[in-house]
Formats: sequence, structure tokens, C-alpha cells
Amino acid sequence: MHFTSEQRLDTSEQRLDDGVLEREFTLGEIPGILWTPAPASASASASASAPSPLILLSPPPLGLRKTYPRLAARARHAAADGFATATIELPGSGDRPRLPAAEQALADLRRAMEAGEPVTDEIIDALILPLVDKAVPEWQTALDALLSLPGIGGPVGYSGGVISIGTRLAAVEPRIAAAVLFAGSFVPRAMFEEARHVTIPLHVLLQWDDEGNDRQAALDLFDAFGSKEKTLNANMGGHTGVPEHAGDAAAKFFIRHLK
Amino acid sequence: MHFTSEQRLDTSEQRLDDGVLEREFTLGEIPGILWTPAPASASASASASAPSPLILLSPPPLGLRKTYPRLAARARHAAADGFATATIELPGSGDRPRLPAAEQALADLRRAMEAGEPVTDEIIDALILPLVDKAVPEWQTALDALLSLPGIGGPVGYSGGVISIGTRLAAVEPRIAAAVLFAGSFVPRAMFEEARHVTIPLHVLLQWDDEGNDRQAALDLFDAFGSKEKTLNANMGGHTGVPEHAGDAAAKFFIRHLK
Repeated sequence: MHFTSEQRLDTSEQRLDDGVLEREFTLGEIPGILWTPAPASASASASASAPSPLILLSPPPLGLRKTYPRLAARARHAAADGFATATIELPGSGDRPRLPAAEQALADLRRAMEAGEPVTDEIIDALILPLVDKAVPEWQTALDALLSLPGIGGPVGYSGGVISIGTRLAAVEPRIAAAVLFAGSFVPRAMFEEARHVTIPLHVLLQWDDEGNDRQAALDLFDAFGSKEKTLNANMGGHTGVPEHAGDAAAKFFIRHLK
Repeated sequence: MHFTSEQRLDTSEQRLDDGVLEREFTLGEIPGILWTPAPASASASASASAPSPLILLSPPPLGLRKTYPRLAARARHAAADGFATATIELPGSGDRPRLPAAEQALADLRRAMEAGEPVTDEIIDALILPLVDKAVPEWQTALDALLSLPGIGGPVGYSGGVISIGTRLAAVEPRIAAAVLFAGSFVPRAMFEEARHVTIPLHVLLQWDDEGNDRQAALDLFDAFGSKEKTLNANMGGHTGVPEHAGDAAAKFFIRHLK
């Protein structure tokens, strides 16, 4: 992990994020960003010198550059609660090499949707599974590197956009203690079985009127999770219209489980 | 409306409910309870002399005496947020005369469930519709009386146990500005159509693993509500196991919409 740039975020807008430190890094070929709360904010923790719990902020597959404003806003919010947050570019996103199988599946998906044809399991599998297969080990490598940094400790939360990545990571990575999942992408059949192996507390966000999303698959996946403690928070507003109060509830979920 | 008793609630446990005034009343033959915040708590409102917004707290059909501890706890919580709350005994509950059709339907329901037979639409209609038909006008009469009291004003929220009562009241009573509904009872088919006429902000609580509840009917009803702003908050823990954080989220919903 090599840091490539460093800045204090502008503090003029929000009182609570005084001096959040934003550092870009590379992890091998993968670009990423780490946000750490300033000592003043970190004093919200039990002790100012205690390491900050970490939230892995998995982006939607649109590239970090495009989603930076949303990610940085969530990182500031988390920093005000005393959390460090980190994100890495997903495989095939941003400037990273495309995933040919997924690119083909995306073309097939668009063609099917434009023709009003059903989106087959084959298309969904080809779109999502290669991404999950590649992304999950990368997040684990990032976790190794992040937890070795001074000032960052457990417990670790995951908050993410492609729900199948979060599902598998929560199932296989014991260092993840709690997860906020966004049910807004297609779900391969295989994920319903993997979901049964997830036992950590979950907070699942669903946009009820998200026309590009399979709502029933989202409800089935929520049902499949093996966690004894899981919340489904469904709202109106379309795919990108998650209301502010839902973001606040997700933040409170992490405070309950990571502090 | 006649007040029949009055007490200040014990303040030793909770700092914020200093001196909540609890008054029992009768409205014709119907017993009820009104809780009003003390001036100190009411100062959380814009002005200490402004009337408190009101939350109608509809009980589950178990009788006020049986559910008093839960209702009083919610009333104290609401008082700390600056709300007055009021409840009345449902038709057929507590010491009120039974509803013969509903009693028969309850016996039929138990017989069907014990025999592992499907619960028919006829049973559900006979169980719920007479209760809704009788309860909704009673809540409206209670609202007339409550809003004529000094210190109590709008906007009015509704928080309730039998979701069909809340659905019809929200559809027909324009003074209700926002509602928290608990999706934990059978839903007559007719209510799905009535739900389309509900347009106020809704916060719907669902216990996902509530075995005595028809989860699909709850999801269908949530989908049917005409409200542009609606949240489904689903959790584990069984019918009576609504987690504390879900209660807190419902309280925040009322703060957003009634203050």
C-alpha cells in the first residue's frame, strides 16, 4: 500500500468533520482512498489515542472518480462518528482493465431489457460472479493493509453497493463484524445459498420503487441471510434516491455494532 | 370527554419525562388515557407555550390494562420529544362489550390454524372489518375531543397496532399528518384498495419472522399505499420483539413530520 496524495478536507461546511484526512493510495494496481478522522473528532471514541474502527466503503461499479462526491460525503459523516473509512476501485471500473465476460453480459443485459425480454440467470451470473470472484479477495488484501496502519483498528464494518460482493465478503471474512448492504443490483442464484452462511448483524437498504432492480430477489436475499439480527430499510425515491434519514439509520447501525 | 383520574408519572427512572401528566378519561362508554408532557419537556418545542402535537397511540386488541406498560413507555418517550399521546380502548377489548362476529371469526381462525387449514378471506374479513368499521369513527370522535383541550394541537400522528384501522383512518381523516403502522395482523382484501387512498408519510414496522403474520400480505399492503414517502422497517425478533432501534426510528419519523 503506497500513499500517493494527502489532503485535509475543507472544513467550512460541516462543523463535525474538522480536518478529516483524505489519502489516496495504490494497493498493487488498485487505486483507493482512505479517510481518517482528525484527533478532535476521534475524541468521540473512548480514548483519543484508541485506534478508529474501520468501515470499508465499497463503491457502486461506476468508478471512484464518478462516485467520489457521494463517497466523500459518507466518509465525512463516518469520521464525525469516529470511524476511518476506506474504498478501493472495483475490478473493471474506473481506469482498471475491463472484465471481458462482464462487459459482454452488460451488453446482453441492455439488449434484453431494451427488447423487453427477461433477464436470464445466465446473464446475471456472467455479469456479477466474475466481479465478486475478483473483488472479494481484493477487499481482503486491502483489509490486511489497512489494519496494519497505525491508528486504525477493529471492529470492521462493510458498507457497499454491489450486494453480492458484500454478501460473499460477510460470509467468508471473519474480520467483518457488521455490514450495511444496498439491495440495488441483480443477484445470481448462487448468492442465496452463500447468504445463509452470513451470520453478522446486517442493515439492508432497498429502494422499493427502483425500476431497474428485481425487488423480489432483494426480498428473497434478505430472507436468506442467516443473521439473527437483520434489518430491512425500504424507501421510495428510485435507485439513487436513498433518503437522508435512511443514511442516518445506517450510520446509527454502525455506531451500535462497531463502537 | 370526562377525566376520571390524574397522576404525575414516576420520574425516578428517566430524566427526560419529568412530570409527564397521565389522565384517564371516558369518552361516552369508551375508556382512554391521555399523556401530556410537562412544561419542562414541552420546552423542547419551538415555544413553551405552543400546543403539543398529538400522537394517537392505538393499542393492540388486548385491552388497555394488559398493554399499559408498553403504551406508557411509548408515551413517556413521546413526551420527552414534546408530544402529547392518547389512547382509547378498542371495540371488543378490555371491559368493552364483545363484537360477536369478530369473536366467532377468532374461534374460526384458531380452529383453522390448529387444523393446519388455510385462513380464508371470509374469516379475515369477519375478524377485522367489524373492528375497523367501529374503531375508526371512535378515533375521529376522540380526535375532536382531544384537539379541543388546551395545550394540545396539530399536527396529529397515528401510531397503531391493528394495521387495517390505521390504514382506513389515514385514508379518511385529513387531520392525520403521518402514521407509524405495525404490520402484524391479518389484512382483509378490501384494505389493499383503501391503502391506495393513503397519501401521508408512513413508517411501517414489520417483524420478518412473525410466524402468526402473513408476511406477503404485509409487503403487498406496503406496496399498495399511495404515499410518496413511505418506509418499511423490517426486523427479526418475533411478533412482540420489535428492537429498540426500530422504536427509536419510529420516534424520529414523528419528529421529522410533526414538528
